Amino acid sequence: MKHHFSRRVAGAKRSAIRELLKLTEQPDIISFGGGLPAPETFPHEEMAEIAAEIIREKYANVLQYGLTEGSKTLRQAICDWLKPQGVEATIHDLLVTTASQQALDLLCKAFIDPGDVIFCGLPTYLGAVQAFNLFEVDKIGVQLENDGMDLDELEERIAEAKDAGKTLKAIYVIPDFQNPSGITMSLEKRKRLLEIARREDLLIFEDNPYGHLRFAGEPMPSICSMDDEGRVLMMLTFSKTLCAGLRLAVMLARGDLMDALVRAKQPTDLCTSKLTQHLAAQYILRYGLENHLEEIRPIYKEKRNAMIAALERYMPEDAGISWTEPEGGLFVWMRLPEGIDTTDMLQDAIEHKVAYVPGASAYVDGGGQHTIRLSYSLVSPETIDEGIRRLAEVVKATIEAKQVAAGTR
Amino acid sequence: MKHHFSRRVAGAKRSAIRELLKLTEQPDIISFGGGLPAPETFPHEEMAEIAAEIIREKYANVLQYGLTEGSKTLRQAICDWLKPQGVEATIHDLLVTTASQQALDLLCKAFIDPGDVIFCGLPTYLGAVQAFNLFEVDKIGVQLENDGMDLDELEERIAEAKDAGKTLKAIYVIPDFQNPSGITMSLEKRKRLLEIARREDLLIFEDNPYGHLRFAGEPMPSICSMDDEGRVLMMLTFSKTLCAGLRLAVMLARGDLMDALVRAKQPTDLCTSKLTQHLAAQYILRYGLENHLEEIRPIYKEKRNAMIAALERYMPEDAGISWTEPEGGLFVWMRLPEGIDTTDMLQDAIEHKVAYVPGASAYVDGGGQHTIRLSYSLVSPETIDEGIRRLAEVVKATIEAKQVAAGTR
Repeated sequence: MKHHFSRRVAGAKRSAIRELLKLTEQPDIISFGGGLPAPETFPHEEMAEIAAEIIREKYANVLQYGLTEGSKTLRQAICDWLKPQGVEATIHDLLVTTASQQALDLLCKAFIDPGDVIFCGLPTYLGAVQAFNLFEVDKIGVQLENDGMDLDELEERIAEAKDAGKTLKAIYVIPDFQNPSGITMSLEKRKRLLEIARREDLLIFEDNPYGHLRFAGEPMPSICSMDDEGRVLMMLTFSKTLCAGLRLAVMLARGDLMDALVRAKQPTDLCTSKLTQHLAAQYILRYGLENHLEEIRPIYKEKRNAMIAALERYMPEDAGISWTEPEGGLFVWMRLPEGIDTTDMLQDAIEHKVAYVPGASAYVDGGGQHTIRLSYSLVSPETIDEGIRRLAEVVKATIEAKQVAAGTR
Repeated sequence: MKHHFSRRVAGAKRSAIRELLKLTEQPDIISFGGGLPAPETFPHEEMAEIAAEIIREKYANVLQYGLTEGSKTLRQAICDWLKPQGVEATIHDLLVTTASQQALDLLCKAFIDPGDVIFCGLPTYLGAVQAFNLFEVDKIGVQLENDGMDLDELEERIAEAKDAGKTLKAIYVIPDFQNPSGITMSLEKRKRLLEIARREDLLIFEDNPYGHLRFAGEPMPSICSMDDEGRVLMMLTFSKTLCAGLRLAVMLARGDLMDALVRAKQPTDLCTSKLTQHLAAQYILRYGLENHLEEIRPIYKEKRNAMIAALERYMPEDAGISWTEPEGGLFVWMRLPEGIDTTDMLQDAIEHKVAYVPGASAYVDGGGQHTIRLSYSLVSPETIDEGIRRLAEVVKATIEAKQVAAGTR
């Protein structure tokens, strides 16, 4: 009955990352694949206690339907947490979503007609690309530099798209410890991006899943905190700052834009689970999100350090291999010599009992074949060392095989 | 920045039902509005215990990301529960969704291009209409009779739509205790509906939120259980059978259709909360869903009986008022004399401290102005009596005012 399919799924593929998650179930594979948060960061004792209490005592509330906009208690707690970060918001500016992936879905529903343009990084978050694909977005990629998106190139791409008569809607960015590259956008570029958006009348979709997981360097203001027009819609997931299993995020949007998002959310799932919302709200009110973040940042820092050290230890020198050294978040981004296809190489890697995400899936222009994303979040420092050792063997063998094939060795 | 809106939300309105939910927060109003399950049916003691246990002991699993398809434990538990109901399914035929509203969203994503036709009841579930609107479905309404959709009319509408060159995709039905009418489709019509779908090569979206809440009459097989082609996609929410706050449902679909739905779900929310899935799964494994249903059915029966008794007691006779007497579910459907506009009347009702859902919002053809949906689920039998007494006063006054205006009194 395939003839019944919509145009949008007829072309869609299953997510490489989601399929990879299945591989990680094999216990002998060391997976740097999925961007899963470290379970040891989940405040499970506190959450177990809160869950039992609110289900027992507040069941008529927390096990019932809730407002589409989300729990007022949770939204107020987030407003209070955002204020010292320079983001002024009332509960009416916050929409609770069934995690940030749903926020991306709602942004498309509210603002995208087929063929509308969204600019995004090369590379960018695969899940966003998939959400955009489902709504037939015209995705225009812009190269990332070490301090974030190349804004000169962005301006060129905007001019080209305007000349081509396209409808430009938004710029999608992950300014802090970007997925998949780990790159952070400089303050100067944040300001200039906002200026460009203002001049060209574009929305900015600011995805901020990792910004609060900074373990080195100076905190950077969100683009949202510099916006006085309501042009920036910021997504803040709890998946990495609290735990992924709640499927919980908030999106910041103002006035009419918020109204459109609420009208998109009603038919999408009526409301997000009140149980998970109240679990998060009570955790934040009782224990404080900042306190929790201070406890978990060192866990990620140690893993990131272990990965950087192992890369320096095992990867061949002078072979044209480079990687990012992120100041936060979950990901290291590695570039192998041009000509290496990391999707092909994954098969060898899995035989060597190590896994990663091939970078190509994060490029909307068909590039990135020689890149890979390494997530250090789920693996212990010792296992990171062993996994990178295995990966280095695979990389060396692949480079050598290529040199032999090319007759240069 | 309204010019940034997509076509689909530019036309969308906020849901009347969701806005009504806000009214129910006023404690002096007796609301027959929202179709919320009765909190006294939530197995909260058991759930509190399970929640604490699984968060404490299985946090690395239940607070983490999960498979897009859903928890295998939960899907297996549902397969085992469905089997005695005549529905043969393996876990590969079940997709866990973030409640049935998301299932409707995914059905549209997987099978609908703008302008495609879905046939639905007059009246039908407002939330489905809203999901269909977001995907620019051409909704064609078919009158309900006392034993379900008028299938002669359905065949006429199909012929007309084919003549008009439209792309026909599906028939959306709620065969048991339909929302909003409370009407149940006869076995004969179920069989004939399936034949029509087969002949015309249409999918059937069978929404079954209340089928297991039958408290009178004989159980009826689902249309899905009679389907040997994989043409029927059945949605089973836990919102009424367990509790709404989990935001949990399963959808039954086969083969390629399932594959398309999974590919639609990945970009939509990656996965449904593992915490809520394991809460439901452990509840079902430990206590049994059938046992629980047996306990909660009498609660709804008592309320339904109270509402029918109160309607008989208070509503004026010989005034052209009628109502359905459902054998299960949450809703009574009332028809007032033609010419009464129940949306206008709602203002008076609220002044008399009683609320309901005006029927017009459930009609995709612009009709139904003289109908209302009464939900008995959230109100105690005593309060139902008082609420219907208040409503009867409003109805009488409205009919009299109309007669005076028309000079017939």
